[in-house]
Amino acid sequence: MKRAYNFNAGPSALPLEVLLKAQEELVNFQDTGMSVMELSHRSKDYEAVHNEAQSLLKQLLQIPDNYEVLFIQGGASLQFSMIPMNFLAEGQIGNYVLTGAWSEKAIKEAKILGRATSIAASAKETNYDRIPKLSELNVAPEDGYLHITSNNTIFGTQWKEFPTVKDNMLIADMSSDILSKPLPINNFAMIYAGAQKNLGPSGITVVIIRKDLLERSHDQVPSVLRYDTFSKNNSLYNTPPTFAIYMLRNVLQWVTDQGGVEAIAKLNEDKAALIYNAIDESNGFYKGHAQNDSRSLMNITFNLSSDELSKKFLQEAKDAGFVGLNGHRSVGGCRASTYNAVPFEACEALRNFMIKFQKANA
Amino acid sequence: MKRAYNFNAGPSALPLEVLLKAQEELVNFQDTGMSVMELSHRSKDYEAVHNEAQSLLKQLLQIPDNYEVLFIQGGASLQFSMIPMNFLAEGQIGNYVLTGAWSEKAIKEAKILGRATSIAASAKETNYDRIPKLSELNVAPEDGYLHITSNNTIFGTQWKEFPTVKDNMLIADMSSDILSKPLPINNFAMIYAGAQKNLGPSGITVVIIRKDLLERSHDQVPSVLRYDTFSKNNSLYNTPPTFAIYMLRNVLQWVTDQGGVEAIAKLNEDKAALIYNAIDESNGFYKGHAQNDSRSLMNITFNLSSDELSKKFLQEAKDAGFVGLNGHRSVGGCRASTYNAVPFEACEALRNFMIKFQKANA
Repeated sequence: MKRAYNFNAGPSALPLEVLLKAQEELVNFQDTGMSVMELSHRSKDYEAVHNEAQSLLKQLLQIPDNYEVLFIQGGASLQFSMIPMNFLAEGQIGNYVLTGAWSEKAIKEAKILGRATSIAASAKETNYDRIPKLSELNVAPEDGYLHITSNNTIFGTQWKEFPTVKDNMLIADMSSDILSKPLPINNFAMIYAGAQKNLGPSGITVVIIRKDLLERSHDQVPSVLRYDTFSKNNSLYNTPPTFAIYMLRNVLQWVTDQGGVEAIAKLNEDKAALIYNAIDESNGFYKGHAQNDSRSLMNITFNLSSDELSKKFLQEAKDAGFVGLNGHRSVGGCRASTYNAVPFEACEALRNFMIKFQKANA
Repeated sequence: MKRAYNFNAGPSALPLEVLLKAQEELVNFQDTGMSVMELSHRSKDYEAVHNEAQSLLKQLLQIPDNYEVLFIQGGASLQFSMIPMNFLAEGQIGNYVLTGAWSEKAIKEAKILGRATSIAASAKETNYDRIPKLSELNVAPEDGYLHITSNNTIFGTQWKEFPTVKDNMLIADMSSDILSKPLPINNFAMIYAGAQKNLGPSGITVVIIRKDLLERSHDQVPSVLRYDTFSKNNSLYNTPPTFAIYMLRNVLQWVTDQGGVEAIAKLNEDKAALIYNAIDESNGFYKGHAQNDSRSLMNITFNLSSDELSKKFLQEAKDAGFVGLNGHRSVGGCRASTYNAVPFEACEALRNFMIKFQKANA
């Protein structure tokens, strides 16, 4: 069986070892005579998986004891609403840093709910090619929180350092770079991530939340949209997506086996360097979208000199077995997503392909 | 490999054929060199699965063209909130028939949102042992909808016929009996079901909605909590739980292969009869909870003469390889869930075990 060179932006590549393990025990999980999908979410066998997923994430990211790990459905898109619903008290403002389409969607949902919002900084003027400097951020005492998108999947930019704000009320959408490197958890009130890039399959959202925030929900927030409901019930208030959490657990075991997030971070740097070098050494044949100091190690966005040449590049890449190199449908161009599970060899193959294509078409 | 006799209430048994197919192609889906979990939700390969799941459900339940099939996350519990959010206009009342714990949760969420509610009928007085007669239902011109729970997993009761209400604004939580028998779809404005009983693994909720309802959402409803958002984007507004939908598609193919819902309904009657007969012919050794004309064909609830004897029954059943026979933690006793994927042979084995246990302990 040949594995595709999978550069999908999400859902994206999963570690082969994780898939093989899931395959082996898919019909008979630990001699139960059942698939893990057929277990009751109230059974000891399932709860062991559920709890191990939480504890592995705590270990890997060195999450302090005053934080909890919750499992929620609905993706980052539902978090965009749950955050203002739960955390914005009367008179408070949701303050957002705009670094791309996902930040825009986050602030839009706060506005739909009728909450006051402000923009701490925006990179929209230059088509989201950079992360604003920490010194550019406008924060105010009325801010209920400052919201950032740590990595911008569509534009290929990534925060390298994080602001320190009042009461550490910093909330980050880390859907596309969680677990790619060590994190200063104490800077954050809450971190959330849809699993389908670095954590597992789609259908499960991981929330790391500081415990003092759990007291904040309003009485008129629906039960399954309150963070305290998930906390009080160990994310088992209603039936969780058990198979997705099982896969998450297996991915976290795999990251641990790779040497943890420090080792993964080093590998991610090497992988991204292969492709950024091919861009930088192309004498302008390939043009990176992001400014150098804002470049993402997860999503590498670039263009060729014309739409026709980009199209030719994408077609030949596809024919050569590369998957998912098209830029997001809203911006076009090319994008290589090099998440944790994308092997070094795939990035090497892409680098070689880029050099070869340039030679043939320069 | 020995399969367990899986009588779990949900997540519950899946067809062995479906699991084996998923296992076979888990690492390499249709020669893509990727797992179905690794496909982009915008790819042709995935969209074919997604669309086939919708069309198979439409065929199986003979859903008319003025309805749509949506895929949402969050389970029935999120629907409890989405329904009043989307459908109750100013001055309208959410009218609920209370037939168990899930109906109670549904009305509770409408109240949390501050909406007016009423109770069309309730079976609470007799510990939810029956479904109210259609003639008992109090409906009013101000009703925005009438909400029912078609099958009550905890108490083991099931609606046998459905009311006809104004504008057919009948909404049903069918989580635990959808696809178990043919349905008069035209009686309903909306049917919803968490997948984890008859449709697939947990993590995906199926909504069958009449198209005219899609116009009703308020402007202040978050994007991912509006039915029209799912409709306009073919349930691909944000990343769906792709693997759960793939499994749903495979379960729907399996039901089709079994001869469709008529054939499944006949088999479900035969399966349930095996166990109800063991109860009825036990001279009171086993006592069914539900009144005879309200008995569920999906969840068979019963007690023995004492808590000690129930405990002994459950322990010996467990030792004999039966899984999930404990009653819900809120009511105790015994419960056998005989969903579509539970084989006739498993029900036969349980019947035989019940008779044997009675002989040894009467």
